[in-house]
Parts: sequence; C-alpha cells; structure tokens
Amino acid sequence: MMFKTITIIGFGLIGSSLARKINDESLCEKLVCADVSHTVCDQVLELNLADEVTTDIGKSVEDADLVIIAVPVGVYEEIGEVISGSLKSGAIITDVGSVKEQAIKRLQPYLPADVSFVPSHPIAGTEKSGPEAGFANLFEGRWAIITPIDEGEDSDAVQKVASFWESCGAMVEMMTPKHHDRVLGITSHLPHLIAFSIVGTANDLEEDIKSEVIKYSAGGFRDFTRIAAGDPTMWRDIFLNNKEAVLDVLQRFNEDLTELQKAIRRDEGDKLLTFLVRPRKYAKLLLMPSKKSRLNQIVV
Amino acid sequence: MMFKTITIIGFGLIGSSLARKINDESLCEKLVCADVSHTVCDQVLELNLADEVTTDIGKSVEDADLVIIAVPVGVYEEIGEVISGSLKSGAIITDVGSVKEQAIKRLQPYLPADVSFVPSHPIAGTEKSGPEAGFANLFEGRWAIITPIDEGEDSDAVQKVASFWESCGAMVEMMTPKHHDRVLGITSHLPHLIAFSIVGTANDLEEDIKSEVIKYSAGGFRDFTRIAAGDPTMWRDIFLNNKEAVLDVLQRFNEDLTELQKAIRRDEGDKLLTFLVRPRKYAKLLLMPSKKSRLNQIVV
Repeated sequence: MMFKTITIIGFGLIGSSLARKINDESLCEKLVCADVSHTVCDQVLELNLADEVTTDIGKSVEDADLVIIAVPVGVYEEIGEVISGSLKSGAIITDVGSVKEQAIKRLQPYLPADVSFVPSHPIAGTEKSGPEAGFANLFEGRWAIITPIDEGEDSDAVQKVASFWESCGAMVEMMTPKHHDRVLGITSHLPHLIAFSIVGTANDLEEDIKSEVIKYSAGGFRDFTRIAAGDPTMWRDIFLNNKEAVLDVLQRFNEDLTELQKAIRRDEGDKLLTFLVRPRKYAKLLLMPSKKSRLNQIVV
Repeated sequence: MMFKTITIIGFGLIGSSLARKINDESLCEKLVCADVSHTVCDQVLELNLADEVTTDIGKSVEDADLVIIAVPVGVYEEIGEVISGSLKSGAIITDVGSVKEQAIKRLQPYLPADVSFVPSHPIAGTEKSGPEAGFANLFEGRWAIITPIDEGEDSDAVQKVASFWESCGAMVEMMTPKHHDRVLGITSHLPHLIAFSIVGTANDLEEDIKSEVIKYSAGGFRDFTRIAAGDPTMWRDIFLNNKEAVLDVLQRFNEDLTELQKAIRRDEGDKLLTFLVRPRKYAKLLLMPSKKSRLNQIVV
C-alpha cells in the first residue's frame, strides 16, 4: 500500500483510468472519487471504480493522504478554495494538468503550509472522454512529467508521487514548469490547435462539399478530426493557460506556412521540396516499427 | 482474366500493391513492371512481383491492354512522351495520381486517338513508400475515384477500369476532375501541407528543445510526423498541380487560425469554446467504432 486513502477529484478519462489502475494494483486501502456531476458519480458507482463516491469535493479530501486533481485547469481555483480547509496535515496533492505554470499559480495560493503540492502531467490519453472511456493501462510506457516546486526533486513528497506514477506503469521525468509548458506547446498544444482549426475550416464549407469531406476523409482529414476530438473545455483551458508558449510557437508555424504558401504560389518546386524533405528525419526517429503499437493513441 | 497484359509504370507503394493484388486475383496473363530505377527493378525481381521487369518505359507498354501510371504527377509529360509511340491500339490507360485536372492536362496531349485514358485515384496509402512497402489489401474497402473524360461514365473503357478497381477491393465513385481536386484539396492536400509545415517548425527550434520534441511526441506531434512522412517529390507535385484548390482552402484555414489566435490572445474563453466544439460532429461521424479499424491508415 503506497497510500492509505487516495482521493481523485474529477472522474474523466484520466481520473477513471487512474482509479482502475489503483484498484488493479491495490495502491491504497480506500479510494474516494469526487466529481461535481451526479451523472459521473452514478457512472462511477455502476462501474464500481471507487470505495466512496461523492459530489462534495471538500468532504472528499478529509482523509486523503494523496489527492489527485484531474479537472480542467480553468477550475483549479474553485477546487483549491473548496478543499483548502479540509486537507489533512501532511497530505500530498498532485494534478494531471497539461499546463504547469498556471496550474501552480492557480492552485498553490489555496493550499495550507502543512501539505505538499507536487504538480505532474502524464502524457497519456485518447480522443475519448468520460469515466467509461478510461482503462487501467493508459499510462503504461508513457511519460509522466513532474515539475517540482519548493523543496525540489529530492523531497519526500516528490519521490512518493514519482513512485506512484511508476506504479501506474509510467516513466517519470522531472523538469521546471516553464520548460514543460514550452515543450508541450510544440509537441501537443500547437498540433491540437491546428487540428481544431482545420476541422473548423471544413465545417464552414458549402453543404454540397461537406458530405464528401466526410466520405473521403481517409485522405488525412480523419486524423485531424481524431486529434480535435478531445474535450473542448479542457482544451480551451490549456490554450488560455499556456498562452505565451502557444502564441510563440503559433507565430513560428505561421511564418513557415507562409513560406510554403509562397513557394506554391510562385511554382518554386525546388524550394518546396526542401521544405517537404525536412520531416524525414523525424519520421525515421518517431515511426520505427518498435513504436508502431503506440502510434494509434492520441494523447494530450 | 480482365486483361491479357497489364503494365504498371512506377513501382512504389501504390504500383507494387496493385501488382500484388493483380497476382493474387489473377487479373491478367502477363504483368509487366516498368521503373526507371535499377534499384527498384532489382527489388521487384527479388520480390517476384512481375512477369517482366524493365527500365525501358516505352518498350514496357507495347503489349499492354491496360497501362497503369503510378508515378508522381510532375513526370506525366515525360511518361506520355516515352509511351506515346508504343501504345497498342485499343489500349486503356489509367493513373493513380492524387490530382486530376493537371494529370489529364499533362498526359492527354501525348496519347494517340486509338487509346482510352481513364483517370483514376485510389484514396489509399500509408506513410511508407517503395516496392517493399506495398501489400495486396491496400485498396480493400477504400474509395477509388474515376474522373471520366471524353465519352464519359458509360464508355467501355471507364467500365473496365471501374471493374478493375472493384477487383482490387475498392469502391468506385465517379466525379469531374475539377470536383475531385476541390474535395481532395480539403480532405488530403491541406492536412498534409499543414503537417509538413508543423514538422518544419519543430525542426527550426533550438537544439536543446528538439530532442524533447521527439521524446514527448506522443502529445500529438507524432501523428503529424506520420502524416508528413509521405514521399516529398510526390507531395511537391500534388501541391503544385492542385495549386488553385490548395491555396483557396489554405486561405480559409489561415482566416480560421487567425480567429483562434485572436481569441487566445484576448482571453476570449467563450469564443474559443465555440471554435473548439465544432469538430465534435465530425468526430461522431468519423470516429465510430465500426470504422476504428481503418483509422490507422494514412492515405494520400
């Protein structure tokens, strides 16, 4: 038993996958699930994923040795406000948010001095959301990034959270919150922003061509649709809370796209080719057969 | 036997997949493979995919009842010039190019009056290229679009090519070349252009962050890398030969992206959310479980 009581706040894809894994591996004595949605709580009861299920967020953390916050970053302040008075002395708080600087800024002010906040981000997910979409092996072989604050990497709390992620099958890496946000800005947030945008473009086409976009979507469009199928609220919060890094990398992307556009307009075949050859080295590194099995999973 | 002799010109992913299927289904008595590359011809011999293998494109078509052109659209004129004098009277010519108006414009002037050109485009492929990457089931359940010219849909040659694609496992649809190029502009060409661009952007990042882009690519970036892993020469020819439709849809995409960018910069959460909700209906239509098995294949 790593922890006596674990409370998961927010029971979507990530929260419910964690619950399944915690149950499978017996990582705690008592698992509490808290979600403001009655529908979600009913689903958790039906799926039999937790020992206690409640919509009362504050009460849910009273006995918790580990609290896992798995809600969109936009409601971290509300969560902080509700739990601040109920946290047990010595409790460890972690989260799974896809942005880290703002996650810390929003949550930390509400936390009492006798608890430890260890921000983390498992780079795992699928295009589905909700408690029914979760599965125990979601984190298997995936990275879980911890961005330690205060006492740093060697603190007892950070080590415990690292062990927790490893017990969930993840590989742990540590970095600063700022660096995390910059890396994820290019590897995840920009690709998702682009995918959302391109599906929106298709949506505005004339009706006669729209049905054909769906019919012939195997040409590439379907992959973008899948990337853009994530929870809109979660993504809104990610884009707004990693604004600086996202806008910076979007600016670079726009410059590159303008170059490509110019090369096409001017029929500059050679220039165009030098652009199109560039992805090759990434393809070689990223698409090796051994990694093939992981290619299908879109993660956030 | 649908045809006595079939010649495939260009033995990449599509050409070699067709050869495998033609052999499996015994769709002809003699299969001829022509490719200007000695390396490719050696591979075809090793894989035992054709009855005759030659680098002499002109000679390769002499006995052919069906000629399948499976090379990048940029070299159609050269192919047309080389084969024009060797085509058998009554031969049917088809191609697999991803753009159709320019394909016709480039090839047709070289074809004698006593042969029939039936332009086609199988919406099938993977991110791999070359004769070793092909497989017989590539076209199974995929669309093959035929864009008839001259006598139209009911001509004997068009019907024969349609039957040929059906024998390869494909579902056949007919449309005008112009309409094809517009539909594929949004479903395939734009997504690929964007993917090429975003991988290029990553490529220009500072070295320290580049290795992490690879490490944490599961966040979305890897999917773009896979989409952008296609043959650069083929894609150069597609973009340049479907310039009008590509630039038009790129312009629309840029406008949408600018709106998203503005909403992020101005912290307009509600506006952003309305953008991000839009893909949902496509996701529902495109990502249904029954179609899941096809999701992995990137096609061009």
